[in-house]
Parts: sequence; C-alpha cells; structure tokens
Amino acid sequence: MASKLNKKPVTGMKDILPGEMAIREYVCGVIKSTYAEFGFTQIETPCVESLENLNCKAGGDNEKLIFKIMKRGEKLKLDEAREENDLADGGLRYDLTVPLVRYYSAHSAELQSPFKTLQIGNVWRADRPQRGRYRQFMQCDIDILGDATNLAEIELILATTTTLGRIGFKGFEIRINDRRILRAMAASCGFEEDRYDEIFIILDKMDKIGTDGVKAELKEAGFDAGAVESYVSLFEDVLKADDPVEYCLNRLEKEIDPEVSCGFREIIASVEATKGDHFKLVFDPTLVRGMSYYTGTIFEIAMPEFGGSCGGGGRYDRMVGMFTGQEVPACGFSIGFERIVLLLMENGFKVPGTEDRTAYLLEKGLPSDRLNEALKAAEAERAAGRQVLVVRMNKNRKFQKEQLSAQGYNEFKEFFKEALK
Amino acid sequence: MASKLNKKPVTGMKDILPGEMAIREYVCGVIKSTYAEFGFTQIETPCVESLENLNCKAGGDNEKLIFKIMKRGEKLKLDEAREENDLADGGLRYDLTVPLVRYYSAHSAELQSPFKTLQIGNVWRADRPQRGRYRQFMQCDIDILGDATNLAEIELILATTTTLGRIGFKGFEIRINDRRILRAMAASCGFEEDRYDEIFIILDKMDKIGTDGVKAELKEAGFDAGAVESYVSLFEDVLKADDPVEYCLNRLEKEIDPEVSCGFREIIASVEATKGDHFKLVFDPTLVRGMSYYTGTIFEIAMPEFGGSCGGGGRYDRMVGMFTGQEVPACGFSIGFERIVLLLMENGFKVPGTEDRTAYLLEKGLPSDRLNEALKAAEAERAAGRQVLVVRMNKNRKFQKEQLSAQGYNEFKEFFKEALK
Repeated sequence: MASKLNKKPVTGMKDILPGEMAIREYVCGVIKSTYAEFGFTQIETPCVESLENLNCKAGGDNEKLIFKIMKRGEKLKLDEAREENDLADGGLRYDLTVPLVRYYSAHSAELQSPFKTLQIGNVWRADRPQRGRYRQFMQCDIDILGDATNLAEIELILATTTTLGRIGFKGFEIRINDRRILRAMAASCGFEEDRYDEIFIILDKMDKIGTDGVKAELKEAGFDAGAVESYVSLFEDVLKADDPVEYCLNRLEKEIDPEVSCGFREIIASVEATKGDHFKLVFDPTLVRGMSYYTGTIFEIAMPEFGGSCGGGGRYDRMVGMFTGQEVPACGFSIGFERIVLLLMENGFKVPGTEDRTAYLLEKGLPSDRLNEALKAAEAERAAGRQVLVVRMNKNRKFQKEQLSAQGYNEFKEFFKEALK
Repeated sequence: MASKLNKKPVTGMKDILPGEMAIREYVCGVIKSTYAEFGFTQIETPCVESLENLNCKAGGDNEKLIFKIMKRGEKLKLDEAREENDLADGGLRYDLTVPLVRYYSAHSAELQSPFKTLQIGNVWRADRPQRGRYRQFMQCDIDILGDATNLAEIELILATTTTLGRIGFKGFEIRINDRRILRAMAASCGFEEDRYDEIFIILDKMDKIGTDGVKAELKEAGFDAGAVESYVSLFEDVLKADDPVEYCLNRLEKEIDPEVSCGFREIIASVEATKGDHFKLVFDPTLVRGMSYYTGTIFEIAMPEFGGSCGGGGRYDRMVGMFTGQEVPACGFSIGFERIVLLLMENGFKVPGTEDRTAYLLEKGLPSDRLNEALKAAEAERAAGRQVLVVRMNKNRKFQKEQLSAQGYNEFKEFFKEALK
C-alpha cells in the first residue's frame, strides 16, 4: 500500500466532473420523462454479453472493437489456449441493439406488445483514442418491437424530436430514407443485387466527396460506367425536383412495392402534420446508415452546429430472428447522447434550477446546541425542497463564499461560536 | 447469421424487466434529489479501472473476484504470457470507493472542498452465482472528502436516513461504532495490536454465532483465555448498561483519545436532535464492518425485514494517501441499492404516479387525416405531461384493453376507420 497508484482513468475513458455530470443528468431526465409520456418503458441489460452473441455479425465493424473478458477459475486454460477467444468468454457490449434483441427474445412473453422501450446505458469500443471520442460512452436508444406498421416510425420520430426540442435544440433536420428506396434506385440503374452493399458504402460518402467523388469511386470499383452515370443523375434529378419524395417514388414505380411507397409517404405526412417548427423533416435519398441490419426506413439527426450525425436509426425486421428463428418487426432510434452533451457544454448550457441554493457556514468548535440549531434549520429548508449545504467555516470566509457562489449558492447563513458575534 | 443465438444473459447477471426497472428508477430519483438537497454533487468514473489500482489491497476479498479485461492488439502477447495478469491490463470495478479515491486524487484542484459527492453505478464481482445475488449490481455511495470533522458523519447519516424515509422505509436502525473504540476495547483487555484484525474478524460474527461462539473462536485462535474472558464480558457490560455509549467511553478513558470520545458523542447527540422518528440510532460495540481501510467511525443500516445489512460506511482517512502520498480525510455511506429494490418488490411497492395513463387505439388502415387527428391529440396531452400510448388496435380489443389496464392505462380513446362507427 506504500507505492503510489495511478491517478488517471484507463486509456481512452474519462472521469466525469460535476459540471458535465449535472448536464448529463439533466439531459437523461428530459429523455426519460419525455419518452415515458410516449409510453416507452425503460429496461436494462447487463453490460457484459457472451462473445458468441457479440460476434453475431449484427455489430458490423464494432465486433473488432470488443473489450474481451477473461474466463475465470478452472475455465481459464492458459496452457491450452491457442488464440484470443480460447481465453475469453464475454465482452463489454458495443451497442444496445444486440442486447435488446437478445432480451426481447428471452422475455417477449412477459412484455407488452408492441414493446416500446427505452434504454440508456454505457457501451464500450476499443477504438483508437482521439479527441472527443471515448472508449466508454452512453447510448440512448428507443425501440419498438412487434409493430410492423409505420406507426412505429412515426412515434419514434415524434418522440425523439420532442425530446430534442425540450432539451432546447432547434433548427435541426431529421433526414429520412428507406433501404427499399435505396435498393430500388440501384435496381433501376441495372446494378446487380449482390453488389448493392458495396454501392451503398460509396454512396454513404456523398456528403464528404460529393457527386463527382461518388461517380469516380463507383467507376474505380469496376461498376459499369453507363449505370454509374444514370445512377448519379437519378440522385441529381431527385434532389432538384420540386417534390423529391413524389418524384423519386414515381420514377421508381416499377421497382418499388406500392405499400412501401404509401407507407413512406404517410410517415412524412403524419410527422409534418404533427411536428413543431423546431426541426425539418427532409427526404435524403443518399442516406445509407452504416449498419447492415436495417431493412426499411432509416433516419438520422443532423444538427447545424455539428458536422456529423447526432443520432439515427431505422427499421431492422430480421434481427430477432437471429435469436429465435422467428422474425419480429423492429424499429429503433438512437440519440447521440455524448454529442448532445458536448454541444450543450460548448454552448455554456446552464442546467435549470441550479442557481438557488443556501450554504450554512459553521464556525469550527461550534457548541452542540448551536450545531443542532443549524442542522434543524437545514432539515426544514431541505424538507421544503431547497438545496442546503452545511459546511465548516474556513478561515478565509470571503474566499469560501466566493467559491460557493460560483456553484449556485446565493444565500449564506453563518453560525458562530458565540451567537452575538 | 443463420444459427440461433443465446437468449440468456451471461451467467450470474440479469436482465431487468420493466416492473423492476420502474422501481429502480424511482428509487434512483429519490436518492438523487434528496442527496442534491444535502449538497452532494453527482460524478461518474469509468466502469473499467487498471488492474494495478484494483489490486491495491483496499478492495479486500473483492480483489479475488475481478472480471479481467484482456489486453488488445500488439499488447496481447499470447506466446509470452506466463500468468493471467500478463494477458489483462484492466478490470471491471468491484466497488465505487477505489475509483472515487483515484478520481479525487486526479481532480481535487477542480472540486469543491470539502468534496461532497454521490455516485450511482454498476459494479461487478465474479462471485459464485446464488439466489438474489448477481455478478453485476448497482451501488449507491455518498462520500465527503476533505472534512476531518464529525460534521461529515452527521451529514452522511442524516442524508442517508432522510433518503430511506422518503422511499418509505421506517422502523430501521442505524448502528454506529468507531474503529478506535474497537481498538481501545481490544487494548484494554491486553491483546496485541498486530492481532487486532484477526480479533475483529471473529467479533464480526457476533450476530451469527453469539457471545459463546466468539469466545470459543478466539480461544481456538490461540488468544489468552483470560484476555478473551475479560474482552467478552466487557461487551456484555456495555450492552447491558443504561447508557452504553457513556459507559463504554468511560471504561476506555485511558485507551481512547478524549477528542475521539467527544466527537463520537456529538455525532450521536446531533443525529438524535435532528432526526425524524422513522429510525433509531444505536451504538453497537460489536460492529466491525469488513473493509480494512476504515480508520474511525463506522455505521450500518439494519432493516427489520432483512437479515443482513442494507448498507453502511465509515471514515477512511488513509486511502487518498495511497494515490497521492498525501492523506485526505474521507468518510462515506453506501446504500444497499439492490437490497432496497428487492425489499420494495417483495412488498409489492407501487411507483407513485404510474396509474394514470391514456391509450389511443388506432384501427388498422385508419385514413391519414384520422391518424393525424389522433397524433395531434396525443401531442397535446403529452405536452400537458400525461402519458399517452398510441397503438394499433388489435382484433381482440377487449383483451388488449385489459392488458393495457394492468399497465396503468385507465383511459382509452378509439379511432376507427369511419368516424361514426
């Protein structure tokens, strides 16, 4: 116990200081109360999942970033181990979607149907540490399982945007697309189905490399030059149309199921009819969303203050089937919790209601009756809901009060050894 | 993606179902708001700590139960590894105290002084799985660092008991003792200082094996029979005294620093003078508290409904010194969060305010204008703070309503394809 220990948190993870924590707690509070109003029930799964489940292919590249947990006791056979996975049996979850689907598979009989759920929890990814990105971070997901209708998408978008509005965000965009529209666009230009994913990965770079960049990369990947040209000009035509949704769906009439078109139109119309004016709903035919598990509608939050996305989600109707063999329709929306907190901190956000506190300063050596007087007075104020800090008085009282003022203590009561001092 | 995945959570960890989650969230809410009123600021540390810190000896037996995290990439040298610790560099935290002390060591310049803090977070212990005990569980700790005076103990006890009272607990006991009283009692009977810990481990079993059991075990461990007899009769004398505190402190006058006696009396007097009548404060000279890091006052929550302790804490003035070389006075109180939740669940606790909800049932194929009407009405109710669930109507509407009623939905609005149906 003599040698000094390491004061720093482990590489890539961070300690949360009181100022940030207050903002995080405030945001969590708004999220929980708003989603509750929309009928989402909160649940939690363990932070540890079996490696088998984490490596189920639904995690995409995140599967390369798992913090693995070593087997324990007799199960750990150091001598016989040939590779990493012989030594590990669990891992820290890298998202909340794989655990949710496992949870639903295990408990669906005990859950409401459709199951509307909120999860807020940490996830871990052994990414290369870089500024503003950490290896442990909070995710905040809402999901609806068991609803095949577009009411799921509508409620997810309304709940998420209402939450963001209540936190104080405005002027943002919800971008929306559908994997089936993406596929129809590719199909209409003659691309082969088994190369769609390759195309979408390139298309996903549109906002970084532009139309010309996408065109060049598609050609470089060996796609037919004529198909590439007509593909790119299809996007241009859609984006410059007066009504991009109608134009797009009409052009793809042959390739797209009318039910899909109809459902997609209804999502947009319903959100438009109900939403406040703090955000825009925008059809973005170039929106891809990385994860391969999406099967239908996809959406993303774009904040003007922030380069990348501040959250997103979509429909993933085939993931429950991985656990049960039986498919269950599912749709989710994830808020980029860490990015939102970062934006609030950068904008000097003040948590409402933290500016009205009382501090009692107790001189050292205060006799018991005076001490009790102070404690009782504090108890009465606290019972009325006021924050009261009871502390020993420092020698430099003025400095102590200045420091407390900076923490929102704007009223002081001083208790001296002699009452009349 | 074809083979079915494992639906169960990993061994010893559990999924939290909506009913339990609602209780957990409610308890967390009361804890956060009450401790905030007492001026505690919430913080968070990463769930992963370096193995070096976790093995610092402050963790006691918990250090045997660490879930270790494997090194990654080039750092993992499978061929060269001779023992477990060559392969792992981090571990899941087994408590919140070691991380707190590390955190304080790293950030004390940025923190209020004294630093009053609340942590609520998961910890992990690879214990043998058994009923009601899990390998991942929540801890809820409050700590005051930088206050050497007994105001720390007083505020910790008042804050914790106020919290428990607000959750609805009454008739419980806070048992209090002091490591220095424990040591003085052992000293007064002539035991040697270097065997105190051994004595205390046996004494700690008093409530299980009784006075005779303690006597027998002490003798068996080779302690002097005369010393053992006078030790045990000292406890008997204290416990049957009219005023056990005064009797005990007077008997130990020679062995105990008057400042310690005085401070201990004041803690009891102040808590007695301020506290509500929902709990008793009881001096328990046999109270040991397992962890070796305690240096002064120790306390424990005893619930009548529950065999063991429902939380506890004490003063640990020497732990910060392990990280910085410079000692900082510290005192903490941990609420047994999981036990409290268990007690509430067993008593059929109903979370206040969850019984007044509205469900909108939407017939399938509802035209867009009717859908929008429903969504707008829901939005208005939610803006007023009401919980409104919007769901598709099932074929068996009666059964659907019954199920919803069980979840607190007591008002229904139905939207049919034809308005006059």
